Amino acid sequence: MQMYDIIAKKRDGGRLTDAEIAWVVRGFTTGDVPDYQMAALLMAIYLRGMQPEETVCLTRCMADSGDRVDLSAIAGVKADKHSTGGVGDKTTLVCAPLVAACGVKIAKMSGRGLGHTGGTVDKLEAIPGMRMELGRQAFIGQVNAIGIAVVGQSGNLAPADKKIYALRDVTATVGSLPLIASSIMSKKLAAGCDVVLLDVKTGTGALMKDEASATELARQMVAIGEAAGMRTAALITNMDIPLGVAIGNSAEVAEAVQTLRGAGPADLTEVCLELAAGMLHLAGLGNREACLARAKAALQDGSGLQKLRQMVEAQGGDAAYIDDPGRFPAPAHSLLVRAPRAGFVGAMDTEQIGRASVVLGAGRQRKEDTIDYAAYIKLYAKTGSRVAAGDVLAELAANDETKLAPAAEMFAQAVQLVDTASPARPLIVAQVGLNL
Amino acid sequence: MQMYDIIAKKRDGGRLTDAEIAWVVRGFTTGDVPDYQMAALLMAIYLRGMQPEETVCLTRCMADSGDRVDLSAIAGVKADKHSTGGVGDKTTLVCAPLVAACGVKIAKMSGRGLGHTGGTVDKLEAIPGMRMELGRQAFIGQVNAIGIAVVGQSGNLAPADKKIYALRDVTATVGSLPLIASSIMSKKLAAGCDVVLLDVKTGTGALMKDEASATELARQMVAIGEAAGMRTAALITNMDIPLGVAIGNSAEVAEAVQTLRGAGPADLTEVCLELAAGMLHLAGLGNREACLARAKAALQDGSGLQKLRQMVEAQGGDAAYIDDPGRFPAPAHSLLVRAPRAGFVGAMDTEQIGRASVVLGAGRQRKEDTIDYAAYIKLYAKTGSRVAAGDVLAELAANDETKLAPAAEMFAQAVQLVDTASPARPLIVAQVGLNL
Repeated sequence: MQMYDIIAKKRDGGRLTDAEIAWVVRGFTTGDVPDYQMAALLMAIYLRGMQPEETVCLTRCMADSGDRVDLSAIAGVKADKHSTGGVGDKTTLVCAPLVAACGVKIAKMSGRGLGHTGGTVDKLEAIPGMRMELGRQAFIGQVNAIGIAVVGQSGNLAPADKKIYALRDVTATVGSLPLIASSIMSKKLAAGCDVVLLDVKTGTGALMKDEASATELARQMVAIGEAAGMRTAALITNMDIPLGVAIGNSAEVAEAVQTLRGAGPADLTEVCLELAAGMLHLAGLGNREACLARAKAALQDGSGLQKLRQMVEAQGGDAAYIDDPGRFPAPAHSLLVRAPRAGFVGAMDTEQIGRASVVLGAGRQRKEDTIDYAAYIKLYAKTGSRVAAGDVLAELAANDETKLAPAAEMFAQAVQLVDTASPARPLIVAQVGLNL
Repeated sequence: MQMYDIIAKKRDGGRLTDAEIAWVVRGFTTGDVPDYQMAALLMAIYLRGMQPEETVCLTRCMADSGDRVDLSAIAGVKADKHSTGGVGDKTTLVCAPLVAACGVKIAKMSGRGLGHTGGTVDKLEAIPGMRMELGRQAFIGQVNAIGIAVVGQSGNLAPADKKIYALRDVTATVGSLPLIASSIMSKKLAAGCDVVLLDVKTGTGALMKDEASATELARQMVAIGEAAGMRTAALITNMDIPLGVAIGNSAEVAEAVQTLRGAGPADLTEVCLELAAGMLHLAGLGNREACLARAKAALQDGSGLQKLRQMVEAQGGDAAYIDDPGRFPAPAHSLLVRAPRAGFVGAMDTEQIGRASVVLGAGRQRKEDTIDYAAYIKLYAKTGSRVAAGDVLAELAANDETKLAPAAEMFAQAVQLVDTASPARPLIVAQVGLNL
């Protein structure tokens, strides 16, 4: 087999065979296929696309390029979720405990923040003492004991995906649906859960800005998961606006706790309940009504919050921060962004707001940057809110005072004031593969 | 400027600015732009194309990436020609002397064989003693003295093109019209002639199999040359069939001599006269009629042959081989390919015939291979010929006997016998930019 011929075939719009895809993934992982040939193939895939069978095969090959986590020592159904990345998206912190409280096991690997979007690992690490790296035995033991563990990705999980992603990142080939779908799903397959609910974001803060691409990405991922024997479905959710009101690591943990207490922002609460219901449904706990009722009950009776507390404690975190999120230290400096005139908050450039939070220190501009866990943006008005001139639109806070002004300027540019309120899209835009 | 943004722009079908193209060419030549990013850009260019202005700019930047040959010390018009590569194409050996005999200067750099096509440098090197590397002064001195010099490419000519071509060659991005056009024309611009006639081949033995692509390539190259102030035109010529009857280095020199004596194959003679007439026309020697008449006169009166002899002598070659090509040593072994049945010779897979000649040793399979200058294929029947069963279709000869059978098998596969003769295309299929 020759890489040249494989590139030429895809360049001309042909369909790669399973053997060709396996050869490429293996060769690129071992280094036999050089970066420059892989880059040419990735651009050809970007522009020519892949057939569903090709995407399924690519995903499997990447999942098989390293370890596959064996969760068979955990009794019961193991449910996973994945979000394509949002701003203020702390849903895992809420819906994973709710699902665990309903008896479905959560043995989850999460990621760190990427670009303008936050990551669950960073958020949980805001809790003093919290360990996000558990050994395989400790991980499985914890899930068997309390029903839930959320850790960072560890081990040699889908190394082919890691290497391919690094190349896509510098060759402008990230934004290809089959490549995005196979990248995400290869890690989900390797992570070993039985069912996975995908939360595909769409809107100004999402990777997929428009609903059609988000839905297509969801379809491709669901098809991959199902072809691999993993029960998979997706919700397409609204990321026109940040989710909840807090952006920033410890502030988002606090907001998640608030939500598990039943006093969270309405949008965050609704999305978390829908995600939890979807996961429960995939795990076989009944139809939408039944699953939503169980998720709500776990929120109302405090059993979800209790699961989060148990998990934090089990992973060495100081549960006092869950009992009283007021303990999280406030940043040394803060600044208010005020409405320059009266009106309604119009469309928000949510990606830009995410970037502003990164500037504050809530995320990393470069991989080696350290995070300011206390830094945050708190929204006092979101799309549709009526404001008077001088009203506070947001509070920005950080330990590095020099970051406030540039972040505030970015934030101000991301929020438009308009004369008439326009209706917001529903939070759950669509779904794929759920028979709720 | 960021390579990522430039790749993304072209990926999305955008037009690169002159500054962006200059930045890429410079960065890739110095090594600041890595191979993998360039490979992604080349594939994006392959699939998205380039606007004429982009192609012109790319060509200029590649021409400017190294030395530009200064031919100003040569009086009069300096004419160049370029063929896109054919099988049995010894036209430079015939038409360059004809043009020089008519008083237009030939200060030409030629190439070696590439893939299934031969190269003028290899052919001339079949003549014992022939030097294809002259110093700049000797080169210019020879042209001023006798009006003609044909040498190998030397010096640091368009190094950016060389590096980009090497990458295209392994990333399946060779066959892009703007990339082919700019690659060829960057070397022509750097070579410093005043006028250039392009011989764009079309047919089974050509890089451009179909007439439409050949014509489009010709158009793009003519546009580039004219935009750079070099008088440029193109003939699109028939490469459905090898040109002349001899394929192989010393055999082609012998056939060129035969043609300059007025006794060459009709197809080769016609194409050489048309090319010579086109070059003379571009050099300002009048209309087609007048130029063709002058070229024919130089053939009939032996002044063309005399120019070739002068050039060979000036470059250290043994002119006795020009006076008597029978001196070229015959290969040690030969083999006849015979018609398996009666009929007409139908379409010929001329690329395959070229490959068979490479197998015999007439070309290089790898860059480091040495050439068997004596190896040849001689055609006794071409498309349209009527043959009886057992008639000789071709003679294959080589010094390495083991090469004969595999080459003969390839040759036999490349020639079809059919029941009815179909008319051949004209030799000159079309022209671009000539006001003959």
